[in-house]
Amino acid sequence: MTAPAAPAPLSGFHAVVPAGGAGTRLWPLSRSGQPKFLHDLTGTGRSLLQGTWDRLSPLAEGVCVVTGVAHQAAVAEQLPGLSVRDLLVEPAPRESAAAIGLAAAVLHARDPEAVLGSFAADHVIGDDAVFAEAVHEAVAAAQTGRLVTVGIEPTHPATGFGYVRAGSALSVEGAPSALVVEEFSEKPDAETAAKYVASGEYRWNAGMFVARAAVVLDMLDEYQPALGRQLRRLGAAWDTPDRTTVMEQVWPRLPKIAFDYAVAEPAAAAGRVAVVPGRFGWDDVGDFHSLAAVLPAGEGGLQVLGETGLVLSRDATGIVVPSSGRLVALLGVDDLVVVDTPDALLVAPRARAQEVKHLVEELKHQGRGDLV
Amino acid sequence: MTAPAAPAPLSGFHAVVPAGGAGTRLWPLSRSGQPKFLHDLTGTGRSLLQGTWDRLSPLAEGVCVVTGVAHQAAVAEQLPGLSVRDLLVEPAPRESAAAIGLAAAVLHARDPEAVLGSFAADHVIGDDAVFAEAVHEAVAAAQTGRLVTVGIEPTHPATGFGYVRAGSALSVEGAPSALVVEEFSEKPDAETAAKYVASGEYRWNAGMFVARAAVVLDMLDEYQPALGRQLRRLGAAWDTPDRTTVMEQVWPRLPKIAFDYAVAEPAAAAGRVAVVPGRFGWDDVGDFHSLAAVLPAGEGGLQVLGETGLVLSRDATGIVVPSSGRLVALLGVDDLVVVDTPDALLVAPRARAQEVKHLVEELKHQGRGDLV
Repeated sequence: MTAPAAPAPLSGFHAVVPAGGAGTRLWPLSRSGQPKFLHDLTGTGRSLLQGTWDRLSPLAEGVCVVTGVAHQAAVAEQLPGLSVRDLLVEPAPRESAAAIGLAAAVLHARDPEAVLGSFAADHVIGDDAVFAEAVHEAVAAAQTGRLVTVGIEPTHPATGFGYVRAGSALSVEGAPSALVVEEFSEKPDAETAAKYVASGEYRWNAGMFVARAAVVLDMLDEYQPALGRQLRRLGAAWDTPDRTTVMEQVWPRLPKIAFDYAVAEPAAAAGRVAVVPGRFGWDDVGDFHSLAAVLPAGEGGLQVLGETGLVLSRDATGIVVPSSGRLVALLGVDDLVVVDTPDALLVAPRARAQEVKHLVEELKHQGRGDLV
Repeated sequence: MTAPAAPAPLSGFHAVVPAGGAGTRLWPLSRSGQPKFLHDLTGTGRSLLQGTWDRLSPLAEGVCVVTGVAHQAAVAEQLPGLSVRDLLVEPAPRESAAAIGLAAAVLHARDPEAVLGSFAADHVIGDDAVFAEAVHEAVAAAQTGRLVTVGIEPTHPATGFGYVRAGSALSVEGAPSALVVEEFSEKPDAETAAKYVASGEYRWNAGMFVARAAVVLDMLDEYQPALGRQLRRLGAAWDTPDRTTVMEQVWPRLPKIAFDYAVAEPAAAAGRVAVVPGRFGWDDVGDFHSLAAVLPAGEGGLQVLGETGLVLSRDATGIVVPSSGRLVALLGVDDLVVVDTPDALLVAPRARAQEVKHLVEELKHQGRGDLV
């Protein structure tokens, strides 16, 4: 293995960052008004969104963020380097096909040769240099007119992620490790996941997609014709005085559908998708259990996300998030999740971190929307 | 068994309530500035001090509270019925021999025939009517010139309490169940405690003492002569303009010693102590484990001390004290103690509730006296 090359901006490459998703399994840290991507979940002093920006800015000619109207101010606050041209605001959430498609349409209208790469705002990447290498390969592979995904080399038979099954090598200049994608698979059960990983043919689907903007629009035209047509209208109007009018007409009626289902799966079935395997360490940090897994090991087995001076512990392991300014005292607890915020406190074992979303549902049901 | 008689005020009987003790094992609920006795730990809407007042007022001609200068305002606030004459303020803590002795000296100066009964401000009593019966008997027994303790019938071989060993019947009019005390025993180990309880000769020492004020002073003269002499000086000066001057001279130099060691133990050795067994349910609520034991069973095994609407739980057992106004969400935790206050949070298993005091020591050590 050789050391990864230093990243360099790729001519014509535009990063797209869909910044949405509530992250309810990370409640009470993540809230609808302050969702997961706005939080520093890695203790680096940078939010996940800022980390994504830091990772993509050196690689791309531009970074474009697609977010909801409720979060545009927070996004602008966190990313002072973001050009106002590159903040695409959704009046209402319409899922990832509309978000990525809008970016494709706008970028294509500005530059018909643009290549876009879409990367979620709320994932954690281990090694940015290795990630940059994968993006370089993906951009090279995308010049073939394919939709290219970066598939994560599995480190364990995870049941919480979808998988991408790869076939033969793509054999493209600049993308030596790219493979043709045979199919996308849903989240498997444990037995199936073990088979997937043992076969060596599967990677995790991290929702990273690289393609020429024109290709994305062509695929939308083919697989979601109504969506494709409306998004092209939006792209043409975006940088004109008609933007608001067209947006008001078009956006509310767009179908809510994920990009994976709408585009990637049918395109794979038609042999139009490639995958570049990624070995850079990745997690979607879906709950406090996986958050604990990506944080550095804590003193005595207790991980603190935040100010360690606010935690007093004795024989305690697990993960604690002291974010209310109050002292958190832990005595004799094992693998516990304690999340302290100004208006709500969560205490749960790491093993049940997935179920936190049920508490959030219960709160909504109780009319405590102010807390979610 | 007959039903206990309704309580009636006992002529010449004065209740004394030493209101001190930090209750550090109940941190962060109990603080040096807001100690255990000022808190409602039973969910009745009345603090332990107020509960003690409610229990004693109907039985006594007067109730006198001995407390530190730091807590006199809070005591007065909680007990509007307390006469200013009956609030005895200690300029500095001097332990229970000085506190009870001061009350004895003041009451004796006011009424040489006074009988006093001292009961801690921070204990929980199950059945007030049965308690009243025991006090009636103790007052009758005290007329023999003895120091009388109310000894709690053990419900289990506790290692956290001292014990009183009883001998023959006292055979006194009005105190049919009174027995002569053979000795006081320190907190035993588990094996010894089991023997104590099996023998039927032992009761828990709850620190409840009834005696004529003159007898208390005589015993102090005999067993702690310097203390006795100074307390008589204080008693004589108390209701005169000299109180402050004498207090300033005397108080700072009084020995710090517990009434049990200073008076009750040597008096028992001399055959001068009696015990009236109490079957009214008692606990000193020393920590969150014992607090959980005295609270009513909670829904699904979760006990809430405070506003239940602030707690959202799913498969959770233990005890939770939501006292910051924030929502406390518990998921899948067993026998856990969660105490939520505006500036500090405690999470610990019930089984380790005793060790909370070590956290308090650690905080003091870290210079966080503001939190203890």
